Amino acid sequence: MDLNCDLGESFGLYRLGNDEALLSIVTSANIACGLHAGDPLVMQRTVRMAVSKGVAIGAHPGYPDLQGFGRREMNLSAEEVEAFVLYQIGALMGFIRAEGGELVHVKPHGALYNQAAKDRVLARAIVQAVKRFSRRLIVVGLAGSVLVEEAREAGLPAAAEGFPDRAYNPDGTLKPRREPGAVLETVDAVCQQAIRLATRGAGDGAQCVPVETLCIHGDGAHAVEFATAVRNALQKAGISLQPLKP
Amino acid sequence: MDLNCDLGESFGLYRLGNDEALLSIVTSANIACGLHAGDPLVMQRTVRMAVSKGVAIGAHPGYPDLQGFGRREMNLSAEEVEAFVLYQIGALMGFIRAEGGELVHVKPHGALYNQAAKDRVLARAIVQAVKRFSRRLIVVGLAGSVLVEEAREAGLPAAAEGFPDRAYNPDGTLKPRREPGAVLETVDAVCQQAIRLATRGAGDGAQCVPVETLCIHGDGAHAVEFATAVRNALQKAGISLQPLKP
Amino acid sequence: MDLNCDLGESFGLYRLGNDEALLSIVTSANIACGLHAGDPLVMQRTVRMAVSKGVAIGAHPGYPDLQGFGRREMNLSAEEVEAFVLYQIGALMGFIRAEGGELVHVKPHGALYNQAAKDRVLARAIVQAVKRFSRRLIVVGLAGSVLVEEAREAGLPAAAEGFPDRAYNPDGTLKPRREPGAVLETVDAVCQQAIRLATRGAGDGAQCVPVETLCIHGDGAHAVEFATAVRNALQKAGISLQPLKP
Amino acid sequence: MDLNCDLGESFGLYRLGNDEALLSIVTSANIACGLHAGDPLVMQRTVRMAVSKGVAIGAHPGYPDLQGFGRREMNLSAEEVEAFVLYQIGALMGFIRAEGGELVHVKPHGALYNQAAKDRVLARAIVQAVKRFSRRLIVVGLAGSVLVEEAREAGLPAAAEGFPDRAYNPDGTLKPRREPGAVLETVDAVCQQAIRLATRGAGDGAQCVPVETLCIHGDGAHAVEFATAVRNALQKAGISLQPLKP
Repeated sequence: MDLNCDLGESFGLYRLGNDEALLSIVTSANIACGLHAGDPLVMQRTVRMAVSKGVAIGAHPGYPDLQGFGRREMNLSAEEVEAFVLYQIGALMGFIRAEGGELVHVKPHGALYNQAAKDRVLARAIVQAVKRFSRRLIVVGLAGSVLVEEAREAGLPAAAEGFPDRAYNPDGTLKPRREPGAVLETVDAVCQQAIRLATRGAGDGAQCVPVETLCIHGDGAHAVEFATAVRNALQKAGISLQPLKP
Repeated sequence: MDLNCDLGESFGLYRLGNDEALLSIVTSANIACGLHAGDPLVMQRTVRMAVSKGVAIGAHPGYPDLQGFGRREMNLSAEEVEAFVLYQIGALMGFIRAEGGELVHVKPHGALYNQAAKDRVLARAIVQAVKRFSRRLIVVGLAGSVLVEEAREAGLPAAAEGFPDRAYNPDGTLKPRREPGAVLETVDAVCQQAIRLATRGAGDGAQCVPVETLCIHGDGAHAVEFATAVRNALQKAGISLQPLKP
Repeated sequence: MDLNCDLGESFGLYRLGNDEALLSIVTSANIACGLHAGDPLVMQRTVRMAVSKGVAIGAHPGYPDLQGFGRREMNLSAEEVEAFVLYQIGALMGFIRAEGGELVHVKPHGALYNQAAKDRVLARAIVQAVKRFSRRLIVVGLAGSVLVEEAREAGLPAAAEGFPDRAYNPDGTLKPRREPGAVLETVDAVCQQAIRLATRGAGDGAQCVPVETLCIHGDGAHAVEFATAVRNALQKAGISLQPLKP
Repeated sequence: MDLNCDLGESFGLYRLGNDEALLSIVTSANIACGLHAGDPLVMQRTVRMAVSKGVAIGAHPGYPDLQGFGRREMNLSAEEVEAFVLYQIGALMGFIRAEGGELVHVKPHGALYNQAAKDRVLARAIVQAVKRFSRRLIVVGLAGSVLVEEAREAGLPAAAEGFPDRAYNPDGTLKPRREPGAVLETVDAVCQQAIRLATRGAGDGAQCVPVETLCIHGDGAHAVEFATAVRNALQKAGISLQPLKP
């Protein structure tokens, strides 16, 4: 099982997340590419740390909306989305080449991730950008999303993502945040969910959706503590942790 | 001799320059990378056109200052400049890979170009960024500049640039714009200067600085007309036009 | 009748529209405020010209999306929209105070305008921003829109806008652009529509929506020509042209 | 004596400083205007808090450089600086009007502040912007700076600022940061310097420069603690704290 985390989300003087600590816990880093978060110095530093710690690197492209942190839906054309994703993958690749690293996966961020889980046109635009850059890059998307579907249909490797701090419906879809119990709050609940997602997938047995990577949230006061607990719980349960492989 | 032109400088709805026409005239395109000009859609379109017309592609990184078009001096640290240049080379590379093209050179833009002609720390930061991306990329800088010097000292291929529409001092430096006669205004004067730069270099015989690429300005009402005239004049003078080679 | 036009839409080196010529034709200028178009220098220049030509000044706030020219829908909260509109009205007011002018109206731009025509929450956020700035500012919105409704309900003066280059449905709504005939292409058709909107309003007699201001498009190759023709046609038809009054 | 602090420097998701706590300590708030820090929501919130706590409000305009937090020198023309300052004062004024507050002063930020302390052309551009907005606004600048001089020459009220956490040369200039002892590190030293600046001014007796406002730094781990200590020390020394008056 792969443990991934969004990293490199600082910008200029503004600091966000505890990148250094999290890079010692996760197996994959989704690195922001400067449009919704991150800047060239932050990207350089984050890629360098990831390479030195042997953490697999993924591009984490988002909408061009720093003020909204890429969380506000935007109405971009498919052509624009494809170009924006290519731009961001390339920009990150600059630092990866400079540091002698390797780009392993691409995971869209925020509103782009959420919209691409359902919107086939958007999903195809992202897949198309990834595919034109390299056919060996793994597309990471929500388990059961059209993004994962479209990536596989296009012949790209894909990985279905699960969220250990979220509750799931029996059909494997995420319980919406506004519903009570949608967000798991205790370390224990999150660790159990991590093990369940890793061993059985999202949802119940009948319609279970396999999960190949678990998302650890890097922001929040207890991010490092939760991440450590999840890592330990998975290892204790005999689940080996390793980055995604194309 | 190589004829280069800054292209891909439109942004969103804002159009600048006649990229299509100029790509039929020049042998190398310096493509803006989204920080001082250009955006992902414009970069995509410009790279595609350059590839289809067989024009060599260079990255044209500038300061992060769209409002000032990268022409306002900024006081960035060497570390920042290196990271910003890497970011922009990478971003452009995304489109070049997607289009099956090749990145041949890097030429800094505007204030970055001018400052790097004299400021050794800045020049080294640019060279360092290029070198870390690829040792085969050609650094294009002002003839006689410390940027060209630093590139060569670092073991990178470099090309000295001349400006057919500018007058030169005997020592090969540009006559400052504020001096009378600094900017050549007629097609004839520009064509003659192009031939002189191509055959003898910048400056007079004694201290002449060899020139390996000529810059054609893409903005201005008569850009296409002047570019065509320079191209024809060079060919008529028996000078063959071809992109830079590492 | 008021003739309004979106102006001050240049940005840095990028030029858009023929502001000087249009300011000699229209009675009201909607001036971009730097988020979707315009910059401080452009705003300064445009306000100065409007004041010197006696053209009434309106703020033209849009989404923070220069690359999309404010034409891409964004999903901002009502609180964000209110704050962004206040920010932009204030910013323009800086130049109006400096030039001894007066702010008369506020007209949202692009996607914000279109969304506020139908989305009551968004419309209220805009109205709230305007009202908190000054209760004497006129809110300009699409004829028949919820924006105009909400402004009036909040006790603000409002003006319903009509588009002389667009066809209308009998109920006074705009014929969607994708339908044939939705955009009027000849000078004659546009002039006749201008007179019809000014004298009878949008739609047919039974459900006609009164129109208090006509929008002249400032971009496009023939903008000045069309604007002049509309102005002349209205005057010939005995319709006096004057800015909106609160 | 006035105690001022730079506030409203958060941006989107990025939080900076402890605005709420500091607004209970200082008598004047310099509020960022969205170009080097701050955004419309942050400005709205900060102005609202300042009004509710009776803290005097000042505009804190900076260079358009969010990534560099306005701390990188930029080479803007005087005309640009004037327009950028007007833009920012106006933008903040939008929120001040909406909240029923009052704009009292203008203090440039970061590199703009430092450059305007020595560069007369820049200082005049700032003064000109302030004056055109209102002749009653107080210009806040470094004690002994050309900015304060130019403001007074232009007939504007001005206030000379001192830094309690910095050492001064005998002539009243700041000891440069790179010199040992330039930054005072202990609470005691800072409090003593605050009292000295408030009672005697900057520098030694012979060439002492009067100081009318003291700057409290809002960032840093101990900002609130230091600010509280300075406030208490001044009051204990019998110095009454009150905002600047034009």
